[in-house]
Amino acid sequence: MDYTKFFADALDRLHAERRYRVFADLERVAGRFPHATWHSPSGERDVVIWCSNDYLGMGQHPKVVGAMVETATRLGTGAGGTRNIAGTHHPLVMLEKELADLHGKEAALLFTSGYVSNQTGISTLAKLIPNCLILSDALNHNSMIEGIRQSGCERIVWRHNDTAHLEELLRAVEPGRPVLIAFESLYSMDGDVAPMAKICDLAEKYGAMTYCDEVHAVGMYGARGAGVAERDGVMHRIDIIEATLAKAFGCLGGYISGKKSVIDAVRSYAPGFIFTTALPPPICAAATAAIRHLKTSTWERERHQDRAARLKAVLNTAGLPVMPTDTHIVPVFVGDAERCKKASDLLLEKHGIYIQPINYPTVAKGKERLRITPSPYHDDDLMDRLAEALVDVWETLELPLGAKPLAAE
Amino acid sequence: MDYTKFFADALDRLHAERRYRVFADLERVAGRFPHATWHSPSGERDVVIWCSNDYLGMGQHPKVVGAMVETATRLGTGAGGTRNIAGTHHPLVMLEKELADLHGKEAALLFTSGYVSNQTGISTLAKLIPNCLILSDALNHNSMIEGIRQSGCERIVWRHNDTAHLEELLRAVEPGRPVLIAFESLYSMDGDVAPMAKICDLAEKYGAMTYCDEVHAVGMYGARGAGVAERDGVMHRIDIIEATLAKAFGCLGGYISGKKSVIDAVRSYAPGFIFTTALPPPICAAATAAIRHLKTSTWERERHQDRAARLKAVLNTAGLPVMPTDTHIVPVFVGDAERCKKASDLLLEKHGIYIQPINYPTVAKGKERLRITPSPYHDDDLMDRLAEALVDVWETLELPLGAKPLAAE
Repeated sequence: MDYTKFFADALDRLHAERRYRVFADLERVAGRFPHATWHSPSGERDVVIWCSNDYLGMGQHPKVVGAMVETATRLGTGAGGTRNIAGTHHPLVMLEKELADLHGKEAALLFTSGYVSNQTGISTLAKLIPNCLILSDALNHNSMIEGIRQSGCERIVWRHNDTAHLEELLRAVEPGRPVLIAFESLYSMDGDVAPMAKICDLAEKYGAMTYCDEVHAVGMYGARGAGVAERDGVMHRIDIIEATLAKAFGCLGGYISGKKSVIDAVRSYAPGFIFTTALPPPICAAATAAIRHLKTSTWERERHQDRAARLKAVLNTAGLPVMPTDTHIVPVFVGDAERCKKASDLLLEKHGIYIQPINYPTVAKGKERLRITPSPYHDDDLMDRLAEALVDVWETLELPLGAKPLAAE
Repeated sequence: MDYTKFFADALDRLHAERRYRVFADLERVAGRFPHATWHSPSGERDVVIWCSNDYLGMGQHPKVVGAMVETATRLGTGAGGTRNIAGTHHPLVMLEKELADLHGKEAALLFTSGYVSNQTGISTLAKLIPNCLILSDALNHNSMIEGIRQSGCERIVWRHNDTAHLEELLRAVEPGRPVLIAFESLYSMDGDVAPMAKICDLAEKYGAMTYCDEVHAVGMYGARGAGVAERDGVMHRIDIIEATLAKAFGCLGGYISGKKSVIDAVRSYAPGFIFTTALPPPICAAATAAIRHLKTSTWERERHQDRAARLKAVLNTAGLPVMPTDTHIVPVFVGDAERCKKASDLLLEKHGIYIQPINYPTVAKGKERLRITPSPYHDDDLMDRLAEALVDVWETLELPLGAKPLAAE
C-alpha cells in the first residue's frame, strides 16, 4: 500500500487552501534583539523581528543568559530523567518555589511547555472532580480545548468575555454540581483582556472553581509581573493560574500554581507530567533569573507599554487598519489568507522585516492579520521604517489604507 | 463548595495504596557524574546516582556543555515563539537535519519532549490515514497509548514481542485496510528488545506501516548510535522512527523521522506541535553536539555495555534477583510496592545510593523493582559498594537472597 499518498494528499489540501506554512530559519543575536540573521534560500540576510513572543527581550538579558551559562557549566545540560526517576533537580525545585511566590499561591508545578500544562493540567484536574462541568470561553487556546476534551467532562462554551452569558450558564447548573470556569486573562490574537473581577464575582456567587491562563501576561502586567490577575487585584481569588516561561520570561516550559493539595494531585496523577523528562537545570535557572529580575525591575514593563502605544499611534497615523487593543499586542487587519501571506513575504523579502501571517486555524477565516509585538528594544526609528514598509506593502497588494481607525469589536 | 476535598481525597487514595511519590531534590555536578548532591530534608548529602536515563553521561560532556554555553551566549536562551511565529531558529534547523541523517531518513521533526512526539505524532499520523487500524504492542509506553487513544482509530493490542500473535492479527485484517504497527525497540522497564527484523518482514508481507519508538536505544546501539534498528540492519525498513534527546543525548526534546511528505504532514497538522514554543537554541545546539560525538565515538557505547555486563555479574554473584536482560538496563526484582519503596529509602539514607522504586503504574502490581542503569562512569569500586549495600538492604527487609539467577520470562 502506498502510505505516502495519504500524507501527500493532506499537504495538497493545505496548498489548495493557501494554508501551507513555511518556517523562516532565523538566528537571533544576543544583545542585538530584535535584529536577527535570516538564513534565506538565497543566503544570509539581516532582518528585524516584529512578531516574537519573547515580549520583553529577556531571552538575551545578561542575567538570564548568565544563569543558563553558569548552571550548564556547573550541573550539565539535561535533567537525566523524569521527575520521579532521578530528574528532580535543585534549580527546578527553586523555580517552582519562585513561581508559587510570584502568584501568591502555595505551590507550583512545571511542565515541558505551556501547551502541556494546559492539556494535561486541565484534563487531570477535571477528571479528579466527580461530575465536573467545564464552562469554557469561546476563544480559549487550542491547548485548553484539548485538555478539556481529554478530561471527558461535559463542556459548555460561553461567548467570549461575555459575563452575562457566563452567569446565565452558571444559573442553569443543577445545585451542588462542581463547575470549573476556564479562561485566559489576555487573548493573544486580539490582544483583549478578560473581565477578571466580574468572573471571580460569578465564580464565588455560584461556587465555581476558576482556571486562568496568563501565558501572554506574566512578566508584563502587575507590580511584580505576575500578570493581569495581579494588576486587577484578583490573583488570590483565582484557584489555578497557568502560565509559561517561554514568552516574557524568555525560556521554555509551562506551569500551574494553586493550593498545595490541588498541585500535588496533578503532580501525582497527570500522565503528561509523570512520564516526561524534567526541564533541564540551565533552563530552570535562566527562568528563575528572569522572574526574579522582573519582580523588581519595572523598566521593561513601562517601556513595553510605551512602545506599544507609540506603535499604534504611528500605524494609525499612516492609515493602517490597526485593530484596537488595550495591550501590547498590535494586530493589523488583512482579512484574506493569500494577501496576508503575500504581505508577510513582501515585508521579509523587500524590507527585511519579519512578521508572520496569522491565518486559519490560529484565527477564524476572514480574520487573517499581521500580529505585531513591539518589545522594549524596538526604537522609534525601527517603528517609522515599519510603518513605511507596511504602507508600501498595502499599496502593492491594493489593501485599503487611510480609513478611520477601526472601532473595537 | 470545597474543591480541595476532591484533591485531598485523590491523594489519600495514593497514600493508602503506598503509591504516593516523593521526589528527591538532586544536584548533579558536571564532571563528577554519577556523583551528586542530595538536598535532603535534613541538609545536603553526597550520593551516587544509579538510575539516571542520561545513560552515557552526555549531559556533562564538555562538547555538549560547550555547545550550550556558546549558543546561549551568542543567540540567547529561548526560541521566542512557536515554530511558525518567529520560533524557527538555525540550531533547530541544523538539529533536524542531523537527526534525519542519523536515521537515514529524508526528514525529522522536533517536539518539546518524547512524550509529546509520541502523543501528537501518532495521533496526527493515524488521523491522516483513512480507516487506519493500529496494532499496538502490549507494553507500549503511556505516551504511545495516549497518542493511539487520541487518534480515535480502532486499536488492537498484540501480546508483547509476540510476532505469531501479530501475524494472526494482520492476517485477519480486511484486505486493503491501512494498518499501523506501533512498537518500541527497547522496553525500558524489562530491558528486552523487539524482534525488529521479524516485525519488518510481517509489515512488508501484509502491507502495514511501521512506527518504532527508540527512546531507550538511540546513542547506545548501532554503529553510529542510531539505535537497535541500525544495529539490526533494519533502519531503512521502518517507516517512522521516534526517539528522544533527553536520555543518551543528555538534553531535552523528542522527534520523529521518516519520509518527507509524512513528516511535513505531521508538521502541518499536529496541534501539539503547531501551538507550542520551539525548543531553545542552546538545547538544540547541545543535542546536535551529543549526536555528532556519538556518531563517531564508540568508547561510550562499548564501555556502557561492559559496565552493564559487569554489574549483572556482580549482583548475580551476590545472590540478588537480577532480572535477565540483553541490554544496559539492570532490573532487580522486589515484587512488593511497600518493600520496594523501603529498599529505595534505605539505599539513599543509609548508603547514599539513589535508585528510585519502580512501582505501579510504571510497572504492573506485583512486578515492582529497582531499575539500575549503569553508565560508562560507574566504576568497579562503585559497583562493589552497590552490591554490598543491596545485600544489606535485602537482609534488613527480609527479601530473598542467594537464589539461582532468574530465568528470562
